[in-house]
Amino acid sequence: ADAAAGRAKAVQCQACHGLDGISKLPDAPNLAGQNEDYLVKALHDFKTGERKNELMSTVVKPLSDADIANLAAFYHSLKP
Amino acid sequence: ADAAAGRAKAVQCQACHGLDGISKLPDAPNLAGQNEDYLVKALHDFKTGERKNELMSTVVKPLSDADIANLAAFYHSLKP
Repeated sequence: ADAAAGRAKAVQCQACHGLDGISKLPDAPNLAGQNEDYLVKALHDFKTGERKNELMSTVVKPLSDADIANLAAFYHSLKP
Repeated sequence: ADAAAGRAKAVQCQACHGLDGISKLPDAPNLAGQNEDYLVKALHDFKTGERKNELMSTVVKPLSDADIANLAAFYHSLKP
């Protein structure tokens, strides 16, 4: 996975999760340093509908498996 | 919420999430320093079935709202 490509994709995540991975809203989780496997699963589950959240379900829809892997690598790489 | 009471309850969380809030398994998230509101919502959603995970759904079932608030306060209080 390519963390730099993930950072580029993460511009659409930053309003809630920050480009630093520190949440900007009380009900959005911090992502900095989070387990990479967990992040891949979370994004995948939002995409399939296994996990539900109105906003996440919408933003995840256009992401490819590579996008998801890159985003997970990026947020995992950040210092919490 | 009472973080000390949360720490006592967290003995049942430690195999996966650690008493330090640092995940012990690749597919379990780190919880140390996580947003308190997010943690309350996650536990609540596992309890209602809005969010699904075989293990979490089982362990969350006996938790009261106070237990959930205390666990969220405890994990939020830890340094990531």
